[in-house]
Amino acid sequence: MDYLDLPRNRQMNKIKNIGVLTSGGDSPGMNAAIRAVVRGSIYYDIEVTGFLRGYEGLINNDFIPMDRKSVANIIQRGGTILKTARSEAFRTVEGRQKAYENLKANGIDALVVIGGDGTFTGANVFSKEFDFPIVGLPGTIDNDLVGTDFTIGYDSAINTVVDAVDRIRDTAESHDRLFIVEVMGRDSGLIALRSGIGVGAEAIMIPEANMNADDILHKLEHSRKDKSSKIIIVAEGDDTGGAFKVGEILQEKYPHYDTKVSVLGHIQRGGKPTCMDRVLASRLGVVAVEGLIQGESGVMVGQINREIVFTPFDHAIKHINAEKVSSKWLKLIDILSF
Amino acid sequence: MDYLDLPRNRQMNKIKNIGVLTSGGDSPGMNAAIRAVVRGSIYYDIEVTGFLRGYEGLINNDFIPMDRKSVANIIQRGGTILKTARSEAFRTVEGRQKAYENLKANGIDALVVIGGDGTFTGANVFSKEFDFPIVGLPGTIDNDLVGTDFTIGYDSAINTVVDAVDRIRDTAESHDRLFIVEVMGRDSGLIALRSGIGVGAEAIMIPEANMNADDILHKLEHSRKDKSSKIIIVAEGDDTGGAFKVGEILQEKYPHYDTKVSVLGHIQRGGKPTCMDRVLASRLGVVAVEGLIQGESGVMVGQINREIVFTPFDHAIKHINAEKVSSKWLKLIDILSF
Amino acid sequence: MDYLDLPRNRQMNKIKNIGVLTSGGDSPGMNAAIRAVVRGSIYYDIEVTGFLRGYEGLINNDFIPMDRKSVANIIQRGGTILKTARSEAFRTVEGRQKAYENLKANGIDALVVIGGDGTFTGANVFSKEFDFPIVGLPGTIDNDLVGTDFTIGYDSAINTVVDAVDRIRDTAESHDRLFIVEVMGRDSGLIALRSGIGVGAEAIMIPEANMNADDILHKLEHSRKDKSSKIIIVAEGDDTGGAFKVGEILQEKYPHYDTKVSVLGHIQRGGKPTCMDRVLASRLGVVAVEGLIQGESGVMVGQINREIVFTPFDHAIKHINAEKVSSKWLKLIDILSF
Amino acid sequence: MDYLDLPRNRQMNKIKNIGVLTSGGDSPGMNAAIRAVVRGSIYYDIEVTGFLRGYEGLINNDFIPMDRKSVANIIQRGGTILKTARSEAFRTVEGRQKAYENLKANGIDALVVIGGDGTFTGANVFSKEFDFPIVGLPGTIDNDLVGTDFTIGYDSAINTVVDAVDRIRDTAESHDRLFIVEVMGRDSGLIALRSGIGVGAEAIMIPEANMNADDILHKLEHSRKDKSSKIIIVAEGDDTGGAFKVGEILQEKYPHYDTKVSVLGHIQRGGKPTCMDRVLASRLGVVAVEGLIQGESGVMVGQINREIVFTPFDHAIKHINAEKVSSKWLKLIDILSF
Repeated sequence: MDYLDLPRNRQMNKIKNIGVLTSGGDSPGMNAAIRAVVRGSIYYDIEVTGFLRGYEGLINNDFIPMDRKSVANIIQRGGTILKTARSEAFRTVEGRQKAYENLKANGIDALVVIGGDGTFTGANVFSKEFDFPIVGLPGTIDNDLVGTDFTIGYDSAINTVVDAVDRIRDTAESHDRLFIVEVMGRDSGLIALRSGIGVGAEAIMIPEANMNADDILHKLEHSRKDKSSKIIIVAEGDDTGGAFKVGEILQEKYPHYDTKVSVLGHIQRGGKPTCMDRVLASRLGVVAVEGLIQGESGVMVGQINREIVFTPFDHAIKHINAEKVSSKWLKLIDILSF
Repeated sequence: MDYLDLPRNRQMNKIKNIGVLTSGGDSPGMNAAIRAVVRGSIYYDIEVTGFLRGYEGLINNDFIPMDRKSVANIIQRGGTILKTARSEAFRTVEGRQKAYENLKANGIDALVVIGGDGTFTGANVFSKEFDFPIVGLPGTIDNDLVGTDFTIGYDSAINTVVDAVDRIRDTAESHDRLFIVEVMGRDSGLIALRSGIGVGAEAIMIPEANMNADDILHKLEHSRKDKSSKIIIVAEGDDTGGAFKVGEILQEKYPHYDTKVSVLGHIQRGGKPTCMDRVLASRLGVVAVEGLIQGESGVMVGQINREIVFTPFDHAIKHINAEKVSSKWLKLIDILSF
Repeated sequence: MDYLDLPRNRQMNKIKNIGVLTSGGDSPGMNAAIRAVVRGSIYYDIEVTGFLRGYEGLINNDFIPMDRKSVANIIQRGGTILKTARSEAFRTVEGRQKAYENLKANGIDALVVIGGDGTFTGANVFSKEFDFPIVGLPGTIDNDLVGTDFTIGYDSAINTVVDAVDRIRDTAESHDRLFIVEVMGRDSGLIALRSGIGVGAEAIMIPEANMNADDILHKLEHSRKDKSSKIIIVAEGDDTGGAFKVGEILQEKYPHYDTKVSVLGHIQRGGKPTCMDRVLASRLGVVAVEGLIQGESGVMVGQINREIVFTPFDHAIKHINAEKVSSKWLKLIDILSF
Repeated sequence: MDYLDLPRNRQMNKIKNIGVLTSGGDSPGMNAAIRAVVRGSIYYDIEVTGFLRGYEGLINNDFIPMDRKSVANIIQRGGTILKTARSEAFRTVEGRQKAYENLKANGIDALVVIGGDGTFTGANVFSKEFDFPIVGLPGTIDNDLVGTDFTIGYDSAINTVVDAVDRIRDTAESHDRLFIVEVMGRDSGLIALRSGIGVGAEAIMIPEANMNADDILHKLEHSRKDKSSKIIIVAEGDDTGGAFKVGEILQEKYPHYDTKVSVLGHIQRGGKPTCMDRVLASRLGVVAVEGLIQGESGVMVGQINREIVFTPFDHAIKHINAEKVSSKWLKLIDILSF
């Protein structure tokens, strides 16, 4: 597929009005993506309609027409101006039928959906059910999609974690403390992995590896004694059961340690997107429109090795992070905290 | 007392070597305070010795001589380079006796202690017991000391809270959610109060006021329906029992709300100090030295209405925040969230 | 005057619709102030109208009705949603006449103007000319108004400077460089003064003091040699002629120094307001409305020693910073960089 | 070459002591790189020596032995703890001879040099001249090296630019202004390119493209009139002659615009490194050591498509950015500002 050099008069295509929505958990950069979809559509002389609260907006016919002005000065804002939600109704045939009828009634002939695996699962069913053109944009802090090196929001989230843990390091260092810090990632340890390296963590506990509390203990006992503060990063989806559980085990077995637990929580979803997330969202957003123009559907647009790649929805959501969490990254943490 | 215009040859005073330490919970700006004590002492031709881990350093004779270089480039750093701790031993007569002997042996003839109420309680006893000159600097994020409008670290902490809750607002707004956010302040609602105004909170729950979960419910039910996200700030010392308890109550009575809880935790102690905290620490740090030169002891140096004020330790720790938490501030929150 | 505890039924007052505008150079916290004026007015059952681009909006009848929603989620935003401008037309009788007619035609019976000395000069004339109730809010990064300890935006601006100079310190320290950094302040050295202390500057050059390049040279030559990086903060209004001029002089007389110049410029006007600026703007904004209700006019509302103070416009703009720039602050810089 | 899974007993190699230095312009992440080289060496049982101020340290025999503790808590710091400089002496045969003798005398048998093209040019000559093993790490904010997708510091620098221009956008938007913002990049427009997309710039002017002031004028005149603020990003190396020159031309031809110029300057070199820069520096730093163990020399270690790549110094410095600045990126800016 061609991209970013389509002729503007290529508009022999039948797409007149693209609907755009954000769905699932929000991530920094979603606004930059919306902006790119809107500006990209206008550039190719296509109208754009924003649906509110994800698939709920389709079902409830809750939408706003978008123009250049609607997306002015939002590239730097966290959250999503289109709001987002998880939709139970869209899982039912009736819900999707209603959504389809609203789309037809409003003259929308294609959709760009911005979200993660739940979003794409719904898009996949809907697209096939009604033969409706949909292209997806990977908007999630978790980076747990196949078909893109990075998802929109991941870079921002790990920088938020790094900023928060740098603060914790200040106080940990002052008090010679051990901190167990829980970061987001229900099925994926990718946030924990990169931010763990970024903050100089002693160890990380993630679903993809099987380090347990005993391993941590062993590591702490055999690590150099000259380090005053120690930080363990735990992914919320880790098998041990989260930071509080880990803290409890360590405290019990290791009572001479001054152990504290911190769960970073929802601060990880908000804040200004980083430059990388803005650039990624801007590029993929325009290409999503160009993909629809060229007949793509049922695919997510991503970036692999800096190249644009389209991946079918059912493959994108496969949660194969093996490649992304190779044992070499874990080894790197070992070497650096040695 | 004169300050910031003492003649440098005023050194008819008997102080030759000032010990400095940080004690209790750390706060941003402690390093700026240490720097000011060191540089101020050197300016007046006095030697300075840094004791590590608060009163533990006195007892264990754990110290480092400080020169200009020791405090270069630390004004912007969170935490404390002298480290901090709470000392059980210093509560015993034996502990304090040991500390006194070490001070004498090392030729230290005055102390500057940086910390909060616990720190000053210890200093008060020690100073009287051994007739030892001590001046205190208010270093705590809680702002709960009498004798200063602001403590060193408070401004930084509320800005950290504001930054974190701004992020939460992004996601709350995207999802139309109600967030209960817990901030530090075991005995004092001052962090909650100012940061609550700063983030545009719907309500705050603090030890000094008696708003309970029912009041919050009432407020939420009667507030305008057009606001999509709502944020309640809870001080950890609030009577209701913290953010999780509040969240539980609200969730139960108000099941149609999408309620989330976030406990900000130790990120509030770390990070770069704000300009105000650096300036406050710099000014008070130098004045603490000048106070000792002029014979002050058993007092905390603070700033009230921009003027330097010395307050006896036993008055400084009285936890009278009445003035600081006037009902007018609570009214302001009501008006702004009306 | 009472404030923050007026009865809501006090509405025997004749004010039905308050106009609000921002004028002159923008400052962080102006949006928080607008929000407080709007919410405060609504609380007291008064309508609010926002005029665009300062006095230009009055003259061109360019306005928008404001409700709670108009100011939702703006407390954290830099700039001003009402936009701002300097108005030549408002300096003419005709211009002001036009403005007055528009106000009458729209049923506006009082104004809150947010800005600095230029804004208040215009308000002062207009208020007297047409006997029109106006209360001013001090919105400027310069902190150069009499009648308030701090202006809205000053704290944010000095933190922006501190953040920028911390970055410069990183590279200055790595290269053993001398940096001359110019900060805003055409008539006032207050930004330079506080941020200079905050960044640990070697010296500051401000309009209120008469340190010249030779003094700086002398200071650098006699200061300790053990410090690798040196930073001089210059207010743009300093007599020597700005950072480039100072850099030139130092470079020539002191060729063995690796001297660099940095002019921070307009980044100082933008960015999120700090917590202090948000709280100040929130408080003063509500009180401005309450002042109008109680018959105040021709005054700026400020905060001195944490108390609300009303100051006549012509006194507020007198540029007497003597108090704010006492020699003790300059002495403090000397001691800390000794 | 293998990496991150070498056996630790592989120490049949002859390297006993690695020297490490930073040279040329500093960049955020250099400290993270130093830390990784030190920890990686220790892990493989190699001693490490830090030379101060780049090649000057080699020539002046100015060094410090490094242990784990020397690099504790520096991963988050901007600048370089080893300091940096440009060395004239190292360009002479005598200088390099001196350096070589010092290295031999101190038992250093390999070097890791962290820097940009100047650094690698020197390393290349030295390595060949004395058959001395050297591996380079790409530490520069410019991202202008062949052999790595990103250099250490680039991601941090573009985020600093984005943060600064976001602030400028606030004030530009409030005043309906046109800003010309100059960013670093003497030979390369890569900082301008990505940050330009990140801030939603109307246009960028870079050495690699030939957009001149007239093109900008044309663009501004034909762009939509509904946008109140406009931002042009200019790379310092652009042919037109920098932001002030561009501002002058635009102001003259386009007098009705309120045009302002801002040169971001050295703030771009400092500040905390982003997570991406920390991870990149950590990974490449360890691999540099492993490369030396396995006999690599005269090469820079980089990362292309997430894979480790070694590139000979003379190729790395070739300044071929064609690939990195494709016309598609410029088209993207056009579409987004359309």
